[in-house]
Order: sequence, then structure tokens, then C-alpha cells
Amino acid sequence: MILDTLPAAGERRHLLDVDRLERAEIERICDVAVEMREARAARAYRSLLESETVGLAFYEGSTRTRVSFELAAKALGATVVDLGVAGSSVGKGESLVDTLRTLERTGVTTVVLRHAASGAPYLAARTTGLAVVNAGDGMHAHPTQALLDALTLREALGALDGRTIAIVGDVGHSRVARSNLGTLVRLGARVRIGGPPAWVRGFEGRPGVSVATSLAEALDGADAVMTLRVQLERAAGGGVPSLREYTRRWGLDEDRMRLAAPGAPILHPGPTNEGVELSAELANGPRSLIGRQVENGVPVRMAILALVTGAA
Amino acid sequence: MILDTLPAAGERRHLLDVDRLERAEIERICDVAVEMREARAARAYRSLLESETVGLAFYEGSTRTRVSFELAAKALGATVVDLGVAGSSVGKGESLVDTLRTLERTGVTTVVLRHAASGAPYLAARTTGLAVVNAGDGMHAHPTQALLDALTLREALGALDGRTIAIVGDVGHSRVARSNLGTLVRLGARVRIGGPPAWVRGFEGRPGVSVATSLAEALDGADAVMTLRVQLERAAGGGVPSLREYTRRWGLDEDRMRLAAPGAPILHPGPTNEGVELSAELANGPRSLIGRQVENGVPVRMAILALVTGAA
Amino acid sequence: MILDTLPAAGERRHLLDVDRLERAEIERICDVAVEMREARAARAYRSLLESETVGLAFYEGSTRTRVSFELAAKALGATVVDLGVAGSSVGKGESLVDTLRTLERTGVTTVVLRHAASGAPYLAARTTGLAVVNAGDGMHAHPTQALLDALTLREALGALDGRTIAIVGDVGHSRVARSNLGTLVRLGARVRIGGPPAWVRGFEGRPGVSVATSLAEALDGADAVMTLRVQLERAAGGGVPSLREYTRRWGLDEDRMRLAAPGAPILHPGPTNEGVELSAELANGPRSLIGRQVENGVPVRMAILALVTGAA
Repeated sequence: MILDTLPAAGERRHLLDVDRLERAEIERICDVAVEMREARAARAYRSLLESETVGLAFYEGSTRTRVSFELAAKALGATVVDLGVAGSSVGKGESLVDTLRTLERTGVTTVVLRHAASGAPYLAARTTGLAVVNAGDGMHAHPTQALLDALTLREALGALDGRTIAIVGDVGHSRVARSNLGTLVRLGARVRIGGPPAWVRGFEGRPGVSVATSLAEALDGADAVMTLRVQLERAAGGGVPSLREYTRRWGLDEDRMRLAAPGAPILHPGPTNEGVELSAELANGPRSLIGRQVENGVPVRMAILALVTGAA
Repeated sequence: MILDTLPAAGERRHLLDVDRLERAEIERICDVAVEMREARAARAYRSLLESETVGLAFYEGSTRTRVSFELAAKALGATVVDLGVAGSSVGKGESLVDTLRTLERTGVTTVVLRHAASGAPYLAARTTGLAVVNAGDGMHAHPTQALLDALTLREALGALDGRTIAIVGDVGHSRVARSNLGTLVRLGARVRIGGPPAWVRGFEGRPGVSVATSLAEALDGADAVMTLRVQLERAAGGGVPSLREYTRRWGLDEDRMRLAAPGAPILHPGPTNEGVELSAELANGPRSLIGRQVENGVPVRMAILALVTGAA
Repeated sequence: MILDTLPAAGERRHLLDVDRLERAEIERICDVAVEMREARAARAYRSLLESETVGLAFYEGSTRTRVSFELAAKALGATVVDLGVAGSSVGKGESLVDTLRTLERTGVTTVVLRHAASGAPYLAARTTGLAVVNAGDGMHAHPTQALLDALTLREALGALDGRTIAIVGDVGHSRVARSNLGTLVRLGARVRIGGPPAWVRGFEGRPGVSVATSLAEALDGADAVMTLRVQLERAAGGGVPSLREYTRRWGLDEDRMRLAAPGAPILHPGPTNEGVELSAELANGPRSLIGRQVENGVPVRMAILALVTGAA
């Protein structure tokens, strides 16, 4: 049910997780995304998905991800309907499954689902005939973010075989980090994670992954560095004495980035807390790929929509 | 002002209520809906409403009904604009009439209106030049639900003349039940309503309608059974000692359905409270037309939009 | 960066304020709006903006202005995406600039921005590559409202040179009044403002503007009268003893309008408080241009979108 074999034309697939994607599939998605970027600029494929109806079901609000998917679907000519469920009447006792089954009966063919419950997209795929695209589920996965990061890194560094990518921050609670970890390792990279002990626990011993106990160790010679948004409310709670202390020990700036490989780029899934996990100068400087990550979001999502529906 | 004579081509009509529709009109709407279902599957009529602008004005939130109308309008090529009024700034002292007049001035031609006040669509039709489609007003009417139920029953049973349809639940407070009652009687059916006395009061003596004092009496030989969502908050209040007691006396399951005609189907306007007004097994079993009801929603609404605008 | 020189074809401009528009530009916008009104009726220019993506960023809710812009953009074939920011997750610590930069990276080309902070559209224009259209910023400006009022007055009175326009109400706190004031003076009109002293303070001595101390003085021979919505909460606070007192001294009705020039029209930016700043009879009577103002909103916004994107 996962997009784990390349879908034959006309077959319907899901994107539930990146962890079961083969390397060849990740690379194919990136290739299709590049094609989609060019098609969009040339205003081609404007009716590729004209017989698809895409439902946006964001149970957690996210303007940037929702807009990215909405523009991807519209660029390919799909009919788009926004359920508007974040904070809506769907609360009135209707279950996720009932809502999605209803959606399917109205002619929706693909659902883009963000949900606070880890595993919600699996439930959707199991209980409906919809093609399901996971747009972030709980602390579990954020597949399209990992795929757009992979594309961004591939375009910046070339093939990732043997390259070292550092991920700094609250890796344990981040669906972005989890999805990136798996994707990067499968692409042949070595991933070094760093952060306060409570935030990097449980990753020791994973193939291709090492845990650093200091920022210097995490950055040492890294070919690229990804830092994560500090959830201000979480910092206060577990593991981290204070934001200021986090920034002092794990915050990134131009100066600290000199420990990484020369010219190593910085990535961040956004939105950034400038002055906390990275300096404004770094976020907006020449090393920053943050804008490219956002730019790659739409073509990656065009590729995913075309692949899950069997159109690509 | 009602769609009570078949609109000549180019004339603008409203759908405010089903109670003033002639039998021939109800049948014509069902026929057009069948045509629309086929057209949608064949991707025909994609620009039938291209010169119409449909405003969605859901003062009460309803994801499923709003999505159904939105897809119907888009399938026929209308421009769609969602007022997003449920919980919005329209509260800032602007009356319904002012909002709708403004909408009309911006070029909106048809409004799909859901409102907590019974009669709001009549007010809209009287004070603006918009074609008005009632998507549910207070406890008064829900015409498109009754029409899609009529289509669903017609496709399941054939002509309804002389057939007995049971409606079980809080008929008195349900706009769905009220609209169904009138439609079914006009189509020649006998309607038997059942529920706790406070919920079925005032329907005795209506032509074509009988009131049952027990579930066994309501179901006895019925050709189809419709049950209604129990409003949990209302059950607690009037007439019903407890939910558990309601389910014990009026809840439907496969076993109790044996009192009805062999193979009699079950309908429900959704969303269901499984385990309350009907069992999960019944809702998802072979007798259930609940999915067909939702499926018929889009073509019925396509038919209505085409008919009120004079396009069909 | 303002639309203060007519944009050459293909150049991108902003509409941040009306105060820096030359008279020739205002007149050109009105001319293009008339052309757009005809084009819309004839269903022409349906793909004029087909390569534009317009983002609606209403940080303050406003159903009527948002719908007007949305229909304008759709009438010209733009892709439209509603950020839905009023009361959304954008609050989660993301700045306006970050949101708009993200939007730009996803392929949005033009943003329609309403924001409670005066100057927000300037910030947007300075920090992004988006074409920015100000849909109302704090107490500063509401350019498209002033332009549609200018078009409405021009169509009612002909050229405004030497004509007297009275503006009655809380001019000091009204972005509508501020934008109208500048526009009307530039078109050669004399503007007479009237209202409680606290509401008209600071306008004495402006070229082309006079301050009246009574309604009779404000209306005396005026060629047109514009009244403003009384913000009920503000009336209670500063300057005005009570709503009833405001209506007694500054409320408009047919009778008082006899002080103005014969047949002088009445304008109001809506939504009206009938019975407060003007009588229902006046608002809905033959002098009222209130409906025409709303009608002119869509073509004026079509003109602005076409001009800022260089398409017109």
C-alpha cells in the first residue's frame, strides 16, 4: 500500500511514510520533481490531474504546507476541496474514518492528510479507497518534507553517498527529523545527530546514525547541517534548562558553522526561530538553503500527487 | 418563487423547501440527477455553469454538505466562492440580508445557504435577486437531503407508490425528517414515524403519515427504514430518560430489522452515532444505503444548481 | 515601488497607498476598471492573469473585501490561494515577513494583504519580490475602497473638479476616509469633513480640505455626501457622549440631505449601521450609491490586479 514499488501507470498508491521507500524510489521521486518544476515554469501538464479531486484534510493547521499542496494540485489541474477541518464542525462527533469515507463517496480521489495522531494516514489507507498522502502525522513522519530536503541536498551536494549530514535539535520529538533520518541513510549518507541528551535518546546504534554529545562533535566536517525548530513550550519542559542555555550550547551561527566542511549549507524545515536555533545572519546568508527547501516543496508535491494517482 | 413549476430555460428559481414541489418536479429532479451522475463520470457538462458564480454561505458549519455542494458547482464549471461565515467577521453587526445583497453586487448569482434560523432562505429569496438554494434552515427543511434520499429509495425500491417507509428518531426536531416526510408522501409512499412520544408529537392525522408507539409497530413490514442521528445533548434533555434507554427501545440492529420487509434497506442522513440509533453491523452491512445517500448528494446538487439557474 | 508611474507592460508594481498616485494614474485606473467591467460581462480576459498566483492574506477578517478580490482574480483566470490567516496557525510565532517570503517561494506572485498594523504592506513590498496590494492597513489606508469610490462618484457626477464632497463621521480613525480625502483632492474636488471635534481633529489647513463644525455646515450645497460606519465601541469611548447623541447631531436622513445640492448622492463604505449614521430610508433610497460602490469593487480590483502585474 506504500509507494514502495514504482506504481505502474494507472495504479493508485499512497505516500504514508518514507521509511519503506527504496533508494530507487526516492531518486525517482526527485527526478519527477525536477521534471515537474520545469513543467510548472513552462505551464505544462496543466491538465494532468484533471480527473482527480484532491481533498485537503488538515486536522492540524499549517498554512505553509497546505498552500504548498494546494498549489501543487492546482498546477496540475486537479479539482481541490479544502475540508477546513482544523477547528471546524468535524469535531461534532464524526470520526476521521467517517469523514474520509464520506469524502470518498462525494468523488474525492486523493486525500492530503495532516493529523495529530501518529498513524492516522495508515488508518485512512486501510479503511478507504482514497489515495492517501501523509502531510505530517503526530511525531511519526513528514514524508514530503524529507523528500524535498533530499532533493535540496542532492542539488546542493550531488550524490549523498558517504556524505555526512548533521541534524541538530529535538530529534526525538520531530517527525521531520525522523523522516529525514531514514531517507538520508537510504541515500547513502551518514547522519550525525546532536542535541540535549533527552532529545537524541534512543538513536544510538541505528545503522548509519551516530549521536554527538556536543555541537562541535556534531558539526565536525559535516557536509551539510540541518537544524530544527525549537518548540518553545517543549524546551521549557523537558531536558533543556532554558532557551538561552539551548542557544548557548546548540544554537548555530556563521562562526560555529566553520567547524563543518567549507561552505557546508544549512537547512531548516521552517518556520525558524531566528536567534534561538540559528542566527538571523546564518538563516539569511549564503549558506542557507531554507528558501530552496520551500521552493522545492511545490514540485515535490506535484510529483507525489502525480505518482500516487498513477498519472506520472 | 419556489422551484414549483419546472423552470423554463433561462429562468431563475429557488429551492427553498420541498413541501411545495409537485410530484412531477421531484421526479424530474431525480431524472436530472441521474443524468448529472453520468455526465460527471464522463466529464461532460464541464462548462454548463461557467457563467454562474455560486456563493457558499454556511452560517452553520457542515463539512459534508458544503463539500458536496462545492464539488457539484465545480463539476459544472461554476466559479465558487466560500463566504466562510461560520464563526467569521460577518458577526460584526452585518445582517444576513446585507451580506447577501453585497454578495449579489459582487456578481454572485446563486447562494447556497445554511442557517440556524428557520426561514432564512425565504428571506434571502425575498430580499435579493440571487437564486437561493436552501442547504438546511433551523428545524425547518433540508430539501437536497430529502431529494437525495428520494433518489436513493427510488433506485433501491423502484416507484414508491404504496410502499411503507419508517422514519425512526427525533422527527419533531429534525429538518431532514420533515423534508423527507413531505417528499415521500408526495411520491405515493406511506410514512410511519416512530420514536419517544415527545419526538413524534403533532404528526398524527397528517395525510399519508401514521405514528407508531413501539419500534415493532414502526418496522412491521416496512419496505425501507430511515433512522436519524440522536442529538446527544437533546436526548439528555427532553423526553428520553437516557441514551442507553433510547437504544434499548428504538435502536436498530440486524435482528430488529427482521420485523421489516425482507431485505428492507436502512438509510441515515449521517453522521451516524453507531451503537446508539443503529448498530455498526447494520450501518456497514448489506442493507445499508448510507453510502449511496452520500454518493447521490453530488449529482442531486448538480441537478439543483442546473435547474435553479435555468441551465438544465 | 508604488503604482505612481503607469507600469510599463510586464513590470511589476504595488498598490500600497493612494496618496502617491498622480491624478492621471487614478483616472487611468478608473478607465481600466470600466474596461474590466465590460470584459467581465462579456466573459472576456478570462485568462489574462493565468500565469499569476494571487495569495489572499487577510490578517483581519473581511468577508466582503476578500470575496471582491477573490472574484476579481478568478474572473481574470489567476490561480487563487487563500492563506486563511485570520485566526489561524500563522499565529504560531511566524512573522508576517516569513509568511510572505514563504508564499513567494511557493510560486505566489501577488499578495492581497489586509493587516491591523499600519504600514504592513510597505514592509511586505520592501522585504519580498511579491506584487503587493493593500486591502486595508490599520488606520492608514484602504486604497481600493478610495478608488472604487472615485469611480462611483465620477460616474454619478462627471469630473470632480470644483465639486464639493462632504465626509461625515470618525474621519480621524478611518482608513477609508483618509484614502478618500487624498484621492478626491487630487481629482480636483473640495472635501468638507464633519463630525464630533475629536473625530475631525488635525485636518484643518490641509489643501483642499475644510472642517465643518455642524452637520448643516458640512452639507451646505455639497455635491455628494459620504458617511462612515460608526464603530459602536469607539463611540462609547472617545469624544461622543452616546450613539443617540451622535445620530441626533450627525446622523443623515432624507430631510437633512436637503441641505446638500439637489439630488446629491449618498455614499457609505459599508457595512452600514442603519438608524445610526444614516437612516434606512436614505440608505435604500434613490440618492444611495451604496450598491454601486460594491458593484464597482470587483472591476476596480480587476484593474488593480491587471495593473500591478503588468498585464493591463
